[in-house]
Amino acid sequence: MKPAQRLPLSVFLVLTVTLSVNGGNILVWYTEGSHWINLKPVLDTLIDRGHHVTVLVPSSSMFINTSESSRFRYEPFNVSISKKEMEKIMHDVLQFLIYDMDHMNYWEIFLKFLETTKVNLECSLKLLDGVVKSETMMKRLREGNYDLLLSDPIYSGSELLAEMLDLPLVFSLRFSLANNWERHCGQIPAPPSFVPIAMSRMTDKMNFFERVLNFYLYALQDIVIENTFWKDLDAYYSEVKGTPTSACKMMSNVDIWLMRTYWDFDFPRPFLPNFKFVGGIHCRPAKPLPEDMEEFAQSSGDAGIVVFTLGSMIKNITKEKSNMIASALAQIPQKVLWRYSGEKPDTLGANTRLFDWMPQNDLLGHPKTRAFITHGGTNGIYEAIYHGVPMVGIPMFGDQPENLVHMMAKGVATTVDFTTMTTEGLRDAINDVINNKSYKENAMRLSKIHHDRPLSARDEAVFWIEFTMRNKGAKHLRVHSHDLTWYQYHSLDVLAFLLTIILLLAALFTKTCCFCLRRCCGRKGPTKKTKKMKKKAE
Amino acid sequence: MKPAQRLPLSVFLVLTVTLSVNGGNILVWYTEGSHWINLKPVLDTLIDRGHHVTVLVPSSSMFINTSESSRFRYEPFNVSISKKEMEKIMHDVLQFLIYDMDHMNYWEIFLKFLETTKVNLECSLKLLDGVVKSETMMKRLREGNYDLLLSDPIYSGSELLAEMLDLPLVFSLRFSLANNWERHCGQIPAPPSFVPIAMSRMTDKMNFFERVLNFYLYALQDIVIENTFWKDLDAYYSEVKGTPTSACKMMSNVDIWLMRTYWDFDFPRPFLPNFKFVGGIHCRPAKPLPEDMEEFAQSSGDAGIVVFTLGSMIKNITKEKSNMIASALAQIPQKVLWRYSGEKPDTLGANTRLFDWMPQNDLLGHPKTRAFITHGGTNGIYEAIYHGVPMVGIPMFGDQPENLVHMMAKGVATTVDFTTMTTEGLRDAINDVINNKSYKENAMRLSKIHHDRPLSARDEAVFWIEFTMRNKGAKHLRVHSHDLTWYQYHSLDVLAFLLTIILLLAALFTKTCCFCLRRCCGRKGPTKKTKKMKKKAE
Repeated sequence: MKPAQRLPLSVFLVLTVTLSVNGGNILVWYTEGSHWINLKPVLDTLIDRGHHVTVLVPSSSMFINTSESSRFRYEPFNVSISKKEMEKIMHDVLQFLIYDMDHMNYWEIFLKFLETTKVNLECSLKLLDGVVKSETMMKRLREGNYDLLLSDPIYSGSELLAEMLDLPLVFSLRFSLANNWERHCGQIPAPPSFVPIAMSRMTDKMNFFERVLNFYLYALQDIVIENTFWKDLDAYYSEVKGTPTSACKMMSNVDIWLMRTYWDFDFPRPFLPNFKFVGGIHCRPAKPLPEDMEEFAQSSGDAGIVVFTLGSMIKNITKEKSNMIASALAQIPQKVLWRYSGEKPDTLGANTRLFDWMPQNDLLGHPKTRAFITHGGTNGIYEAIYHGVPMVGIPMFGDQPENLVHMMAKGVATTVDFTTMTTEGLRDAINDVINNKSYKENAMRLSKIHHDRPLSARDEAVFWIEFTMRNKGAKHLRVHSHDLTWYQYHSLDVLAFLLTIILLLAALFTKTCCFCLRRCCGRKGPTKKTKKMKKKAE
Repeated sequence: MKPAQRLPLSVFLVLTVTLSVNGGNILVWYTEGSHWINLKPVLDTLIDRGHHVTVLVPSSSMFINTSESSRFRYEPFNVSISKKEMEKIMHDVLQFLIYDMDHMNYWEIFLKFLETTKVNLECSLKLLDGVVKSETMMKRLREGNYDLLLSDPIYSGSELLAEMLDLPLVFSLRFSLANNWERHCGQIPAPPSFVPIAMSRMTDKMNFFERVLNFYLYALQDIVIENTFWKDLDAYYSEVKGTPTSACKMMSNVDIWLMRTYWDFDFPRPFLPNFKFVGGIHCRPAKPLPEDMEEFAQSSGDAGIVVFTLGSMIKNITKEKSNMIASALAQIPQKVLWRYSGEKPDTLGANTRLFDWMPQNDLLGHPKTRAFITHGGTNGIYEAIYHGVPMVGIPMFGDQPENLVHMMAKGVATTVDFTTMTTEGLRDAINDVINNKSYKENAMRLSKIHHDRPLSARDEAVFWIEFTMRNKGAKHLRVHSHDLTWYQYHSLDVLAFLLTIILLLAALFTKTCCFCLRRCCGRKGPTKKTKKMKKKAE
């Protein structure tokens, strides 16, 4: 059979633009960083399709400038936390995750982790104050006549606002801590035997001790989250609502969960009808490069180019580290485009050029690109999958090590450790990924899987957002297990009942047997009692 | 937001026909009755899209005449069972299910059920002999250079042939007995707490005793199936292969499971990436009616028409029953089209017309249609959902009672019992369904759900069949749980291990405490030993 007979990616959009001139009114929950980068293309598509998109923006926002002209309508709100404080919190988290963690023991990491979670939630609730505790804001939102709330729930509170405004709610997320929200509130099944917990750095193929660890991590993290995150959130939500309430129960009303992963990136697992896997939601075909970059790429000849970035969060590294990296890059035959705004390394080779900013997607889609050196953020990895580019991972924090474990398991990446890497190690890793053909073949296979689906990720996300608006929710996709307790879900009450019956029957059977036996024996020989009586008579 | 902005159903097909002129070579497993009716439109679409479709047909086939001209290529094969014998088996099954079952106690039904299952499997294996044990046939099939085997597995053996020919395999099914194949071989999760077992006539909302029953039925039927069906099939497959093998393991290699249900008909439940829900795969817009039917329909005025059929399996009913039904139909204001090839009932009203055959889908899509009286076959129900028609169910056997339980739970149907129904009961049920607006509203809601998806059911089925051909399988969608034992899947070994550690730690702790206590007490007061020694000294 001839390959590649799929529906062109743009057909769905082109055809339906004309069908949706009278669009819906969408309210978008505030978010930051790579989460905003990820959501933006979906919002753009929604606007293209005739919808009105209004984005909530806190006065402390680090990424969105509401005074700049934009296709979105912004709904700014004041918060009691400043942009500087937000940046300080972010800096502290990064400092802990990238640098401090290496010098800590497990117990210190655990305590610091709890502290970080608490600080993040406090910050989240300060932002939330600006919306749900502001009468002016709530009045404006009520008068906005929105059809739907679209939320990346990295900042808590969207489920509360959706309930207060009686709006259908669509989530867009990569995963929650310990997958707790998806499992406990969304009811997605996650057997610990083959669904590794988020950030465990394990695959679906676990040996016995990995399964033990996975099971233990699910249990431990659930307990911690239950007694920190949910406890505080429940208290806040109950205070705002004026009655005791549960944040997780509110989250169980999410109509559609748009999970930013797919079977090109993730391992196949059980899921539910209202979970849609839209990994690569932000990917798009490559556009032409700026002239100087194109010229530089073309100058690489057959050797091609290597694209290198450690993401938008890392702007500087130590001079020693940058020299070490530059020295490795200088030893490969490819030309290298390195996104780096720190001081120029002394060892920078003639083949390497530094850039403050790079059109990453366009570079990864360039025919000269041979490899991508990446910190392993989901957005970058998905762009590499989209364009079929093998990767060298230098994971830093968060989900990055885990993302690269997935890519290694699928044979499209190798990794080097940020703290211990050497010039030779990095150089050899790049050469390996470029010269060992299996990496490129696997990258092309993943790219094929990514593209070969009925709708592109973005079109699917847009479809389900519009579906939820058209149908004022998606309650027919909600499983009944939301209304069961955990022991009912696992049929433990049924098992206890059946076990009781079996034990009762067994006891009854034993008693009956004993009784019958006694009666039978009674006829054959004298019992103790009759023996005694006989003795007395003697 | 304005409603109905969805992609026109035909767009996907129209656009992609031009993209698939060089098609694949598809082998179709033999099937019969409503299963064939269901599969045919998919095969037609595959041919429209440029694929070659070859259908295996046993010499005993009741539904397919290979000498008639057709768009499909037929691959007939000889079997040791005649068409008459096949019809006899089918007749006996229907006789048992429709008539005899009512006069039997549970134990007799159970024994008869086991016997029927055995007879069906024997018949299935006799058909299978004609393919896998025929050297000529196997040679022809090997030389056929097929890209894929498409199978409705109602007759066993397609997974064996797929393995022998090394072909990717796509299943199309409504469900298996006790959902055993999907659960055990396909690994789809089915928690007994909210996923009712096939044919249990329960919904996802079960009370405690229904959950006990559901749990019990899963366990009981699994044991029966394991010790009858799988045992015999494993023996047959092992004999053909010449080495001990497992039929369920072969079935675990099914690339895509096209389940003929969707969330308009079924209750939401967990599933897996290679399970695609394509209920209504055969539905299509209504075509104009034959002239006499159209005239009859138009003569009904505002009252409209009622469509009545008990399916292709039931051609005759007793005179008494037909008179009773006709009498009920005569009392409603609608005109009735009744598919019935038995003797004309004496009580037939002027408003009722009998037909040997009816264009059921076109009638259900007619604007005058007010209700559908149906035995509750999946195909008919799906046509009613497609066109938004409320139903009166007269379930007969198999999955029909269960199908109608689903429709009642969704508020689009009412049912009457075939054996006990009265003229008044049937009349009132029809009037209720037509005059109580909620039935029509719910039917329209289901119809909206049915149509409002990214691709139509048939287009989705076709997409995944083509996907499997293009990618020579769909192994990236296969969950790792296939390689786990049942106790590993449920983490029972992990639980046992953790429990052992906890018990050991507890024991160690207790021992340590006792030891410390003894040491402490030892210093404060004399022990028994010292007391004895003291006594001796005295």
